[in-house]
Amino acid sequence: MKKSVFASPQDAEAAFYEALERGDIDAMMEVWADDEEVVCVHPGGARLAGYEAVLKSWAQIFASGQRLRVQVSHQVALSGMMLTVHSVHENIAMQASGRQAAPVVATNAYLRTANGWRMILHHASPAPAAVQESPRVQSSGPKVLH
Amino acid sequence: MKKSVFASPQDAEAAFYEALERGDIDAMMEVWADDEEVVCVHPGGARLAGYEAVLKSWAQIFASGQRLRVQVSHQVALSGMMLTVHSVHENIAMQASGRQAAPVVATNAYLRTANGWRMILHHASPAPAAVQESPRVQSSGPKVLH
Repeated sequence: MKKSVFASPQDAEAAFYEALERGDIDAMMEVWADDEEVVCVHPGGARLAGYEAVLKSWAQIFASGQRLRVQVSHQVALSGMMLTVHSVHENIAMQASGRQAAPVVATNAYLRTANGWRMILHHASPAPAAVQESPRVQSSGPKVLH
Repeated sequence: MKKSVFASPQDAEAAFYEALERGDIDAMMEVWADDEEVVCVHPGGARLAGYEAVLKSWAQIFASGQRLRVQVSHQVALSGMMLTVHSVHENIAMQASGRQAAPVVATNAYLRTANGWRMILHHASPAPAAVQESPRVQSSGPKVLH
């Protein structure tokens, strides 16, 4: 299988959430760096480390057959040359019923590899329903540090 | 006040957890980059963005007077030139009673600034009590990607 090459962390992030919505395990695992040190925390779950553990967890999630719609907002981007960290709100709804799930806050880290940008960390956790933030951060578009 | 300079992300992380244990707001805020884009998520809390919001939250936490003992373990370090991401388990106990708190998993990001390494992101969330991980990751010492 020819692997996708993501030219930017934004591209990798878009592919990550698209794979999540589609429940597509191959597309999901194309986004991740094939490394023993990748880290994934699903909301309320234990920390998983290593490509195989991360793959298994997504396969399990997708096997439920429940498709989600995920709208990402409030992105803050902290960008280095080799490594970029995004903090986002995930607004999740069931595709079948349209029912909103509890809000989730996520930290996503991407590494620049020889084959483009790949995800190396996804840390998602439940957030309170009413998110209090300054209006500045609620404005659209990513913020870049340097 | 003369600001501390942290020569490495490990130094900044050590200072972060020391400040947390001491409930020392000045020491805590020396660790953070003085930037509008810093991000902090306390366990179960909303995402806070910006130095002032982060300062206020720690001041509030420390004002409770309850001192914690925090032992960090299972560190995975994902290191770039300018930006480093640590994933850790926080093993928290009350200093007064010794009572263990629920386990926490945290993602910490550090930025190399003109004044050494500073924290730019702290994302902590509750973890299940029995943490399942491969023995490989439970070995001591940080893992470095590249």
